[in-house]
Amino acid sequence: MYTITLLPGDGIGPEIVAGAVQVLKAVQERAGVQFVTREALFGGCAYDATGDPFPEETQKLCLEGDAVLLGAVGGPQWDNLAVEKRPEIGALLPLRKLLGAFANLRPSTVFSALADASTLKREVVDGLDIMVVRELTGGIYFGAKYRETLPDGNVKAVDVMEYSTGEIERVARVAFDLARKRNGKVTLVDKANVLESSRLWREVVTSLAGEYPDVELNHILVDNCAMQLVRNPKQFDVMLTENMFGDILSDLASQLTGSIGMLPSASLGGKIGLYEPIHGSAPDIAGQNQANPIATILSVAMMLRYSFDMPETAGLVEQAVAGVLNEGYRTADIMQPGMKQVGTREMAELIGVRL
Amino acid sequence: MYTITLLPGDGIGPEIVAGAVQVLKAVQERAGVQFVTREALFGGCAYDATGDPFPEETQKLCLEGDAVLLGAVGGPQWDNLAVEKRPEIGALLPLRKLLGAFANLRPSTVFSALADASTLKREVVDGLDIMVVRELTGGIYFGAKYRETLPDGNVKAVDVMEYSTGEIERVARVAFDLARKRNGKVTLVDKANVLESSRLWREVVTSLAGEYPDVELNHILVDNCAMQLVRNPKQFDVMLTENMFGDILSDLASQLTGSIGMLPSASLGGKIGLYEPIHGSAPDIAGQNQANPIATILSVAMMLRYSFDMPETAGLVEQAVAGVLNEGYRTADIMQPGMKQVGTREMAELIGVRL
Ligand SMILES: CC(C)[C@H](C(=O)O)[C@@H](O)C(=O)O
Ligand SMILES: CC(C)[C@H](C(=O)O)[C@@H](O)C(=O)O
Repeated sequence: MYTITLLPGDGIGPEIVAGAVQVLKAVQERAGVQFVTREALFGGCAYDATGDPFPEETQKLCLEGDAVLLGAVGGPQWDNLAVEKRPEIGALLPLRKLLGAFANLRPSTVFSALADASTLKREVVDGLDIMVVRELTGGIYFGAKYRETLPDGNVKAVDVMEYSTGEIERVARVAFDLARKRNGKVTLVDKANVLESSRLWREVVTSLAGEYPDVELNHILVDNCAMQLVRNPKQFDVMLTENMFGDILSDLASQLTGSIGMLPSASLGGKIGLYEPIHGSAPDIAGQNQANPIATILSVAMMLRYSFDMPETAGLVEQAVAGVLNEGYRTADIMQPGMKQVGTREMAELIGVRL
Repeated sequence: MYTITLLPGDGIGPEIVAGAVQVLKAVQERAGVQFVTREALFGGCAYDATGDPFPEETQKLCLEGDAVLLGAVGGPQWDNLAVEKRPEIGALLPLRKLLGAFANLRPSTVFSALADASTLKREVVDGLDIMVVRELTGGIYFGAKYRETLPDGNVKAVDVMEYSTGEIERVARVAFDLARKRNGKVTLVDKANVLESSRLWREVVTSLAGEYPDVELNHILVDNCAMQLVRNPKQFDVMLTENMFGDILSDLASQLTGSIGMLPSASLGGKIGLYEPIHGSAPDIAGQNQANPIATILSVAMMLRYSFDMPETAGLVEQAVAGVLNEGYRTADIMQPGMKQVGTREMAELIGVRL
């Protein structure tokens, strides 16, 4: 029996999480395992109800469960709140810290049925399967931030980027372990020709590579990496990088697929894993049964694999998604001529039925 | 009469600068202006000859001329030198600082004849014309960098990102002025939901926009921007951003074109402008008359426009390049079936002849 904390959040969050729960129920029957779900307020809706985007009670529930499934947070009505009350900064970042989720796993995978959705040529992205491992609880996100008035009257703003050997090593291990189960290649992305922290990353990761003789370690500068992702993304397997570079590169990598409504994520490191689709809360289509639940469903597959050690069942969920796409079912965001358009609930049902 | 300091540099640098000088000579005759060129050692070759990648004498020459034309620096044989002796860090960054070149202009333009070279679909990039304005002498590149041993024995590395209102305002003016001569749109790229320095950028740029009522100012987060550049790059006109984001995004934007051998840059702000192709020194093809000189020739066009106030002549150079491409001439890097392959010298000559 596993307890899953559900944080539906804002916008389309509740619908896509409901879709994922439908699939969890199908998994339950199929795999003979029991899931207990408990829902909590998180993000803009939590702020509206309690004045706090990440209420104490939600924090407690997150720490009591075995895994957290998050829908999406945010929306224009909360964009002008004080920074620490905004859903992203007041809820998302503290949740990552609370769970100790220092390793963010972001697969970019192209389902052959959807390869034409990419703005890149089919041959460049068809069969793409890369995994960005982004450090998630350190770096410039969590370093000191302040302002200061200079003698000449100018104001100066400062952000500090910092990494310790321990922080680097633990997330690098995640990348090396993943590479072992994939294609045996880790590419460390940094700016070692300019940043001291990047030079420390190179030293720590290079020395750790000695423990993984079966994994090939490569180095690339972040600017060149952005180019190579556009030029030939299939050259990569696991990409390892610090928090801010990872923010940029994982979004870039996901856009190569052309359908970000398909992409899940896992944030690991602590006892309790955090799973969420990479797309936003899409307030414009909220409540219309239009949102694509697949990214959230594939996040459940990651949960099965990484939190519950059920890799076969995870694979079944992924195959069910591929099967439904091959049969021509599409939500609005990935609709193509000649295909069958379905809503959020129907898509989740079609996937559940195949389990 | 204008004096141009030539810094050919390493690898293919000397060949492509020679190609650009051929074109400068053609411009001289055509426009009835006189260019005096003076060459100096810079980069790896300077280190080999003097032990210093940016010798005093070169610095002096750069400060005496009216503009600097740089080929390219670097190569594997200098990669393991102490950081401050490496061509990039020991020469390129100090040169930018010395000239006060705080505004780096990086156009990404697709010549219709070459649109198929992109990994993106033709319709996504054909006609692309964006300009990244990257802050070049501040931010995390030039902030404090250090290491420190923590009580628990871990080592911590730190890089400080900082910006003052003055640094932001002066480069923002460059972006607004450019937008006026282009399509009237500036997009500020930052990470204002996380970084204090980004919030200062937003404040300063938003307030400055009041002085440019004819220019439309938009805001985008850097992660979303990386996605949008892949999804629909033609939505952008002038993109304004800080040093490190600019490093990543300008390289990303240039790779969208599929032919980085075509892309020039200008670094402005001080009295003396710095012009250089964006590609590297390509040591593997150095000395073989194979390198594409067009990026360097288009850098000369930028020099004519921004340092010598000769916009019509700059336009003629750009048209000459387009003309030669339309006639089917190609260097190896942009060769296509059915086209006529030529070398570095021949390409420069063909362009010069059309002036
Ligand atoms: C909302 C924001 C703070 C967040 C981040 O930058 O980490 C988001 O972009 C993400 O990648 O999850
Ligand atoms: C060589 C390196 C220091 C430099 C930079 O990051 O500025 C380069 O990438 C560039 O963009 O000109």
